[in-house]
Amino acid sequence: MSGEPLKVGLLGAGTVGSQVARILLEESAELEQRVGTRLELIGVGVRDLDKPRPGISPELLTTDLEGVVDRSDVLIEVMGGLEPAGSLVRRALDNGASVVTANKALLAEELASLSELADAREVDLYYEAAVAGAIPIVRPLRESLVGDEVTSVMGIVNGTTNFILDKMVTSGLSFDDALRQAQELGYAEADPTADVEGHDAAAKAALLAGLAFHTKVKGSEVHCEGISGITTQDIESAKAMNCTVKLLAVAHDGGESVVVKVHPAMVPLTHPLAAVSGAYNAVFVTTREAGELMFLGPGAGGSPTASAVMGDVVTVARHRVRGGSSQSPSTYRNRPVAPIGASRTRYFVSLEVEDRPGILSRCASVFASHNVSVQTVQQSYLEGLGRQDGFAARLGFMTHEAAEADLAGVVEDLRRADFVGENVRFMRIEGAR
Amino acid sequence: MSGEPLKVGLLGAGTVGSQVARILLEESAELEQRVGTRLELIGVGVRDLDKPRPGISPELLTTDLEGVVDRSDVLIEVMGGLEPAGSLVRRALDNGASVVTANKALLAEELASLSELADAREVDLYYEAAVAGAIPIVRPLRESLVGDEVTSVMGIVNGTTNFILDKMVTSGLSFDDALRQAQELGYAEADPTADVEGHDAAAKAALLAGLAFHTKVKGSEVHCEGISGITTQDIESAKAMNCTVKLLAVAHDGGESVVVKVHPAMVPLTHPLAAVSGAYNAVFVTTREAGELMFLGPGAGGSPTASAVMGDVVTVARHRVRGGSSQSPSTYRNRPVAPIGASRTRYFVSLEVEDRPGILSRCASVFASHNVSVQTVQQSYLEGLGRQDGFAARLGFMTHEAAEADLAGVVEDLRRADFVGENVRFMRIEGAR
Repeated sequence: MSGEPLKVGLLGAGTVGSQVARILLEESAELEQRVGTRLELIGVGVRDLDKPRPGISPELLTTDLEGVVDRSDVLIEVMGGLEPAGSLVRRALDNGASVVTANKALLAEELASLSELADAREVDLYYEAAVAGAIPIVRPLRESLVGDEVTSVMGIVNGTTNFILDKMVTSGLSFDDALRQAQELGYAEADPTADVEGHDAAAKAALLAGLAFHTKVKGSEVHCEGISGITTQDIESAKAMNCTVKLLAVAHDGGESVVVKVHPAMVPLTHPLAAVSGAYNAVFVTTREAGELMFLGPGAGGSPTASAVMGDVVTVARHRVRGGSSQSPSTYRNRPVAPIGASRTRYFVSLEVEDRPGILSRCASVFASHNVSVQTVQQSYLEGLGRQDGFAARLGFMTHEAAEADLAGVVEDLRRADFVGENVRFMRIEGAR
Repeated sequence: MSGEPLKVGLLGAGTVGSQVARILLEESAELEQRVGTRLELIGVGVRDLDKPRPGISPELLTTDLEGVVDRSDVLIEVMGGLEPAGSLVRRALDNGASVVTANKALLAEELASLSELADAREVDLYYEAAVAGAIPIVRPLRESLVGDEVTSVMGIVNGTTNFILDKMVTSGLSFDDALRQAQELGYAEADPTADVEGHDAAAKAALLAGLAFHTKVKGSEVHCEGISGITTQDIESAKAMNCTVKLLAVAHDGGESVVVKVHPAMVPLTHPLAAVSGAYNAVFVTTREAGELMFLGPGAGGSPTASAVMGDVVTVARHRVRGGSSQSPSTYRNRPVAPIGASRTRYFVSLEVEDRPGILSRCASVFASHNVSVQTVQQSYLEGLGRQDGFAARLGFMTHEAAEADLAGVVEDLRRADFVGENVRFMRIEGAR
């Protein structure tokens, strides 16, 4: 093995950072063999020296974040948040250091400008851990499939919501009860908004779409619906259609534009994504030549995320030692994000109606008037004979593929119709063949 | 876009080669953008000019295979077989050309020497399509997980056997009937030996083990058992244990050595591999930090395999244009392949016994005498009261983890015991938690 050691700086010593530090220290001989030179952890930047940091020797810890940045050949940023992380990453790239980050919130807003800076300085910016936790998805999308054409990506990329929906499906819990259970078990935070409202998934959707379609998408451009409005009735409807409910990050090629969205969806039980339960995340990729591929693994956790970070660290370190880069910055082909109304999928619409002749046909004509084609209709009778509102039957319509704007028109008209109860629900269906 | 076009030669115009040629010709503008220069298909070497080759213009076709090699900057070898493919690949590398091959039979025997030649000439040798069809597994193992430590790899890597076993499980067919159906549907060849006896899977197991453990394994070193001996009774036993049966390529880290084997195995229905049915192949990877990951996709077929080939072609072409390589040849750490007797897993042993007191304890003492610990025993009564052999009950033993050599001793002793019928069966259990 040859030459000077590479100086590695680490920003953040939380769940992920502490595991990254452990691997750098414990596996240093193995890492040296894989990189071709020694990786020297020169400092761990933290905001607060008072917290205990087991496994990290006190002399490595510092609150001088810029000092860590300025001494690094390779900077690992796992502190999270927009600032000061953004400024520090920018400073590192500007210094000519290579950067590995797991910061999805930062990248979902700043990937384009940070990539440009990395290109200009001819250094690497790697971010496998930001996209789908420990699931290796960046290299498959960027390299393995680079001779093919990705047509769509669908991901279960948030563990908290996958756990909650699992509980609702398997135990019949309401959203509130399932959330409470997730919080008690440590799967959901005290303020669960970023997870349950889909913001975390939206940041990942933006990164996935960028990788899949060689374009730039910001997290704020992603149409985002969470799962807090999902009812036990929605879950029952899905089961009746041989489906389950998943929060999906979906990106597909819309020709001149790309569709990028996060929303709960019915997924047929026969689809590989349906079997991805609580502990796992997964990304399902459809391409023109290869067909259907799925990547499954832990979406979060300190050690798994550290695995993804360290894969990037070895890669960028090798590039510094041996030259070369597998990045392909110049091949971006920017396409706008399509408005959600233009996106097309299949839908399930559920509504309560009076049980009398002619109602079905009146409902069907609402669909037809918006050019939404119905594939199947299911009718069931509501429990509670003594209902006062007169709506005694439930109809479930499964549509063929239709534009979101047309479906919205259907739902609006049905909600206004006097022969339909107030509780008109719809859900997108993804993954139906 | 800049510079001279890269000259691409193609050897083979069968199922895969014709799709590779199509993509090179149809997608040339897109490929030029991704590579940074034009890819010019300079010739398609075939053994026989008489066959029709739709989509490939006749002036590209030639039987002068060496001529194609000698004019290529990048050689794509999809003709298969050991010779002349091996000599032609060697010639290309020796000329300083980069090589992309899908030839698992060749690589399973010659990867080490071909890699050395590629290193010496400082050119690329890429082979994604040889390992698990269209499933992107090389870059995840070689790069994404390079900062982690793979502890085991289990793959369903042969579509023919997966189809046959599926049929046996879902339709109760015998092996012979399921094979016949696979042949009628074109999923199995007229001579199915390479698939059903596990030779195809063994070549892939060797390549997977090499990638996962940074070592060199030859296909001929892989312990290999096929599925032709699987009986409907084996399938029924698996079902009774809430398992299915899969032909697995298994590689795991044995410390100083590596275990590499192909055999049918019981897989618990709760394991992600159990749901991988006929059309899909999958590779399940366990690592120290990331935990469990699974990669799923089509294992064969012209277009999917061509996708994997073209991903490699773009990658090696970029390296020629922009410099650099993501290969890591110098980090091999050679470890021997362990003898199968040293490998450890769990087992299911099924046997017929006389239905009288004391038999169970005599069987159990056979396990104990070989240090094999039994976890559960199931007893069922055989159909046909009028059986003449006196063996009226079936016992199913599920063991804890044990060494293969010890289990072999158990089976040998049981087969010799006068209180046990002739039909002693055993199967390995993989993926049980």
